[in-house]
Amino acid sequence: MAEVLPSITGSSKRAAHILLINPNGTSSMTEACLRSLETTLPPYCTVTGFTAPHPTPSAIEGHLDGVFSAAAAARAVIPIASKYDAFLVACFSAHPLINALREELSGPVIGIMEAALYSARMLGGRLGIVATGARSKIMHEDAIRYYGLDGFSVGCETTGLGVLELETLPRDKVLDLVGDAARRLVQEKGADCIALGCAGMTEMKIRCEETVGAKDATAQVIDGVGVGVQLLIGLVREGHVTAKGGVFRSAQDGRKARGQDWL
Amino acid sequence: MAEVLPSITGSSKRAAHILLINPNGTSSMTEACLRSLETTLPPYCTVTGFTAPHPTPSAIEGHLDGVFSAAAAARAVIPIASKYDAFLVACFSAHPLINALREELSGPVIGIMEAALYSARMLGGRLGIVATGARSKIMHEDAIRYYGLDGFSVGCETTGLGVLELETLPRDKVLDLVGDAARRLVQEKGADCIALGCAGMTEMKIRCEETVGAKDATAQVIDGVGVGVQLLIGLVREGHVTAKGGVFRSAQDGRKARGQDWL
Amino acid sequence: MAEVLPSITGSSKRAAHILLINPNGTSSMTEACLRSLETTLPPYCTVTGFTAPHPTPSAIEGHLDGVFSAAAAARAVIPIASKYDAFLVACFSAHPLINALREELSGPVIGIMEAALYSARMLGGRLGIVATGARSKIMHEDAIRYYGLDGFSVGCETTGLGVLELETLPRDKVLDLVGDAARRLVQEKGADCIALGCAGMTEMKIRCEETVGAKDATAQVIDGVGVGVQLLIGLVREGHVTAKGGVFRSAQDGRKARGQDWL
Amino acid sequence: MAEVLPSITGSSKRAAHILLINPNGTSSMTEACLRSLETTLPPYCTVTGFTAPHPTPSAIEGHLDGVFSAAAAARAVIPIASKYDAFLVACFSAHPLINALREELSGPVIGIMEAALYSARMLGGRLGIVATGARSKIMHEDAIRYYGLDGFSVGCETTGLGVLELETLPRDKVLDLVGDAARRLVQEKGADCIALGCAGMTEMKIRCEETVGAKDATAQVIDGVGVGVQLLIGLVREGHVTAKGGVFRSAQDGRKARGQDWL
Amino acid sequence: MAEVLPSITGSSKRAAHILLINPNGTSSMTEACLRSLETTLPPYCTVTGFTAPHPTPSAIEGHLDGVFSAAAAARAVIPIASKYDAFLVACFSAHPLINALREELSGPVIGIMEAALYSARMLGGRLGIVATGARSKIMHEDAIRYYGLDGFSVGCETTGLGVLELETLPRDKVLDLVGDAARRLVQEKGADCIALGCAGMTEMKIRCEETVGAKDATAQVIDGVGVGVQLLIGLVREGHVTAKGGVFRSAQDGRKARGQDWL
Amino acid sequence: MAEVLPSITGSSKRAAHILLINPNGTSSMTEACLRSLETTLPPYCTVTGFTAPHPTPSAIEGHLDGVFSAAAAARAVIPIASKYDAFLVACFSAHPLINALREELSGPVIGIMEAALYSARMLGGRLGIVATGARSKIMHEDAIRYYGLDGFSVGCETTGLGVLELETLPRDKVLDLVGDAARRLVQEKGADCIALGCAGMTEMKIRCEETVGAKDATAQVIDGVGVGVQLLIGLVREGHVTAKGGVFRSAQDGRKARGQDWL
Repeated sequence: MAEVLPSITGSSKRAAHILLINPNGTSSMTEACLRSLETTLPPYCTVTGFTAPHPTPSAIEGHLDGVFSAAAAARAVIPIASKYDAFLVACFSAHPLINALREELSGPVIGIMEAALYSARMLGGRLGIVATGARSKIMHEDAIRYYGLDGFSVGCETTGLGVLELETLPRDKVLDLVGDAARRLVQEKGADCIALGCAGMTEMKIRCEETVGAKDATAQVIDGVGVGVQLLIGLVREGHVTAKGGVFRSAQDGRKARGQDWL
Repeated sequence: MAEVLPSITGSSKRAAHILLINPNGTSSMTEACLRSLETTLPPYCTVTGFTAPHPTPSAIEGHLDGVFSAAAAARAVIPIASKYDAFLVACFSAHPLINALREELSGPVIGIMEAALYSARMLGGRLGIVATGARSKIMHEDAIRYYGLDGFSVGCETTGLGVLELETLPRDKVLDLVGDAARRLVQEKGADCIALGCAGMTEMKIRCEETVGAKDATAQVIDGVGVGVQLLIGLVREGHVTAKGGVFRSAQDGRKARGQDWL
Repeated sequence: MAEVLPSITGSSKRAAHILLINPNGTSSMTEACLRSLETTLPPYCTVTGFTAPHPTPSAIEGHLDGVFSAAAAARAVIPIASKYDAFLVACFSAHPLINALREELSGPVIGIMEAALYSARMLGGRLGIVATGARSKIMHEDAIRYYGLDGFSVGCETTGLGVLELETLPRDKVLDLVGDAARRLVQEKGADCIALGCAGMTEMKIRCEETVGAKDATAQVIDGVGVGVQLLIGLVREGHVTAKGGVFRSAQDGRKARGQDWL
Repeated sequence: MAEVLPSITGSSKRAAHILLINPNGTSSMTEACLRSLETTLPPYCTVTGFTAPHPTPSAIEGHLDGVFSAAAAARAVIPIASKYDAFLVACFSAHPLINALREELSGPVIGIMEAALYSARMLGGRLGIVATGARSKIMHEDAIRYYGLDGFSVGCETTGLGVLELETLPRDKVLDLVGDAARRLVQEKGADCIALGCAGMTEMKIRCEETVGAKDATAQVIDGVGVGVQLLIGLVREGHVTAKGGVFRSAQDGRKARGQDWL
Repeated sequence: MAEVLPSITGSSKRAAHILLINPNGTSSMTEACLRSLETTLPPYCTVTGFTAPHPTPSAIEGHLDGVFSAAAAARAVIPIASKYDAFLVACFSAHPLINALREELSGPVIGIMEAALYSARMLGGRLGIVATGARSKIMHEDAIRYYGLDGFSVGCETTGLGVLELETLPRDKVLDLVGDAARRLVQEKGADCIALGCAGMTEMKIRCEETVGAKDATAQVIDGVGVGVQLLIGLVREGHVTAKGGVFRSAQDGRKARGQDWL
Repeated sequence: MAEVLPSITGSSKRAAHILLINPNGTSSMTEACLRSLETTLPPYCTVTGFTAPHPTPSAIEGHLDGVFSAAAAARAVIPIASKYDAFLVACFSAHPLINALREELSGPVIGIMEAALYSARMLGGRLGIVATGARSKIMHEDAIRYYGLDGFSVGCETTGLGVLELETLPRDKVLDLVGDAARRLVQEKGADCIALGCAGMTEMKIRCEETVGAKDATAQVIDGVGVGVQLLIGLVREGHVTAKGGVFRSAQDGRKARGQDWL
């Protein structure tokens, strides 16, 4: 193997402008997401943070919040979308905004949950999800099954905290419980990839990595925001857009045909 | 929406050095793969082409070729792997080399088939595969089912050509038949994403795109080499390696324990 | 068997007040739904028709319409819901309104698609769906798979008409094509139960029944509005409400906890 | 929303005469089933109780009992079936009598297990089954998988009692163990709908409801006899019969063709 | 490889006495089954043919026939079963007799359908079934799905003949249509293993083999009676019986406990 | 039932010559496999033991070992295969050698894992696997899912020992832990059939049988080598070979067409 292997080094300066859409109305979370990308975002790539406007819910806890936030976000994003090459929906769920935007926008649209799931499939053999609150466990498991990946999933572990406690308990106590959930996924259920069931929480990723031994590569802790941006950059670089000849055909012609002149 | 949205632009110069492994012994194909990446590869990213050495088969048509090529490639790649951050197995199949390398190497390892499948899931609603020869159809469908994505697949279409004809027919005739297969997937079976069941064939991608209307975004034609490199770049940028605490734990300790001093 | 079998005859006058929610804004369709129920609705049962208000779409063709109509309908229905015992979402899809309302309302909530699917499972061995337009085929098939019933489904057949043609073609021509689709499901694909992929179209049910031989019980044509109302009446009579201890727990406490005082 | 919503109130006096078939020979159980329906059965609906005659088993514990009871019940029911509009098989299993009767009878035929399963799907997100004895757990789980609903099931919990103990232990002790099983399904496994794996046990439903908080709608306890009758009433009101053009075609012509003049 | 490989040659004279149970009442078919085994049955193995007695149906066309034949056969077989080591249910279906006998008998019990399916899995990549009449197609496909093997199945093809025609058409015409069905499975649907959906028809196997090229090993035509006997012989030689600690536990104790002194 | 049932006794002296292929290089294990067959192998059947030559690994712990052993074994077996009627791959996994040999050899080829799985399906209702080391659990579960049998599996239990401990701990201690794993599968997880996740260990089978009550037929302990040989004998007796018209078509013509003159 003394021969020199053929090799190419990239020089494409194609810009990738990604809109990170936080469907809940909490702009501090959007900003935390952007900050979490600072060290890993490559040149020529820009990520703009968009926070869904009122009357979007201030957090997304269930199906109703999903619907309200999807409607508010879609109405606000569609008019400004032409400036962006791709779109990341920063809610860890099969959020209804994802498919809704795929119909109306040109660039690729993905959610941070699917980004985390596909990354987990490429990095390990069994994935598990740390859910912050107890409510989301079943929604996550239904979504994983819908994506076809239940055969590779060990399920979810949660902190067991209620909504109120998550907000009011000392931060470190919450992180401890998050770390415990990750450890259970790895040591008791056999996960080697952990997806964080939330967006923009750098602290949480670090705590989980410490707990499950990411340093030694025992398990990978996957942040859907980080990998979501990277996967979109890749799809944009390859020139891909959302396919419009199938289920994601725009309903714009239909609206016109029946005289609906509003979104 | 007059307000200025928060935004960050990347500046990470982290290098990503990817080894593209062609498990068959045909170096011209390896080189074609590298060429196909020239316009889309971003700065700081290098892709090195590796062609599996003798006695690897000169093409991979079935399970036996898969085994022989995996063994030849693995033996040659493992000693030089430490120079690379990630590994792309450039054979469109659930090639046994993928999981074998995941056990022994640190960086992420993926195959071009899974790269194409996950990309298709992010870009559309139904995926189909253009298989060059008739033999691979069932292997592809079994692999799609194994990956859990059969619910999103419309299956394969092939050119109907035998191995000999693929080699001996005029190139344009073959491309016509490839285009026909893509058109059937889209128009008769309802695919909106077409994965090319082969590696390094820029011509074939272009022909399919012309046939299925990629220009108008009717369908996306996905080249697993292109998206595979991009997905790996993304995983490397996020600092990911293969998780080693589960099914991809190295067997190195086992070999030592029983005195096996060869690979 | 000359002995007299024990028997009871009902006398429960428990009222069942059902809100039929048409998530699109077309009140004529809501009224057609109500009319279609006139001959089969039993005593003590009332069905009130609710048409989602502006800015709901005037028809629901895809995911975006689904999200907008779910948000508009949910905002309008939740304040008036306490008057009703159960809720039927009259859009033939896994409409996001269904799960959203399950979180906030007490009474059972179902959609006309699931009502038709479960009825088909009780009446025959293979179900098929007549989709009015070509766009909905994939959404229907994904929904059937999500519900777990793909093993019993032969898929969809559509009229092949575009949105514009559905509106502008002579009614009888459209019905002919609908009948043809039903016939293909039965004769070519082996369905014995046909679900109508739309709401409130008595004409369409009759045409399909003529075509597939419902008179001789060859196949059953199932109208999700009709069976949906009946299934809800049954659940109400048995005293059932939506279970609130699992995935359909209301997020009301969460909203309060974080100061969100709007829906 | 001050406008008055359109509304219709039912007046259909169509009778629904349902035959409740208890395939085991224990008539006290048939009578208990009828009694349990007294308060919820609506006007114009009659339920007649039929107990399968000798040599049906006196209880149905497994496959052999299922076969013997199906044969005994079918032979006795078919001659008298024309008087009834629909048929409920009151054994909590995918009892072979269900499909057998679908072939020969005109009206809809369902079992109490499928009635409970579909009701659970309409009322909650995760279903669990309380099995009285340990033997039926695997049969139930196989049946749920066959119905396609395993993705929504948390499985079964049993009392752990053997057949003899079920008969000989004090009633209250048995009910305690049944309540414990329900509680484990809800609190440990996450079910929000509990199906009772038996027929005609009003006491058991009440005990489970007390244990799992049905009052607060935490979980719904579903009695397949109750919902089964209601679902059948609904199908009858909509004019449905069993579809006979597919898998449930009668074999009567075949018997005649080959000279078989007995059932 | 000049070294001599270690090797053993068998000498076990353990007898295997198998009861072939034809659940329909047609003894000529039982005898045809026995004849078809003559050339392949090894020494020390005896196959006894049992024809279910009146009132079993004279053919098994559907679920009702399945139930009646299972009851008649079970009642007659159980008293004589102790003389046999294993039991083959010679009806091509997931016949209810199979699981019923597993509960009461000691030796292994299998059906010819499962024997054919597992053999097909060991011999090729895609299985298809030739169904004699149109009615059984859906039952076969449901059974294949129940067995978990739908991912490997291309489905069924039938002769398209009604019951009457199957009996009255010239034998050669019927065989032609059977051969055509086999050819469609192989050439159009891609099967490489064909299971015969009936028992004891040596002619039919030969015709299919001629049509699909069994000589050149293009496809294998599998007769469930032949492979079923061989698989049972193998299980008996290995000392296996039906496992009785799980779902196939006998209900004998239960019958005694509740005073049921008949089968 | 006084009548004499028709019966035939076998006399076929057709020889079945089976090559048992141990893909790891440890000939003592091959010999142990042969010895374990001594008492059950019938006349006219010969089993020859083949140990894969250097550079095959001395044990197979993961995917890489699987690939290397498959390549080494295939290269050595193919030239000598014409002397044998069927081939058993004696590694408990979906070993890549199985499909590779199916392409090039004429006789049936199966692995001991699939032999054990299909046997478990014929003998009981729930299967479980005793895995010697912790590493193989996920590979086994993925393979079971691939085979379509996950619905019937309770999963794996392991000894919890590392590779080194398995070699160095006292034999009896290891057997105790193996027995414990089998007991957990039966008593805690509900398995009634236990497959041994290894080859040629008569001791281990006996210990498991003692632990789980095989004597009383509570559970069956299945040795894939034993049943694998028997199933192959059966397929050979029935005249079956591997079907070559589908996915197992030989690639020999392809190799010739492109000038590859080596394996």
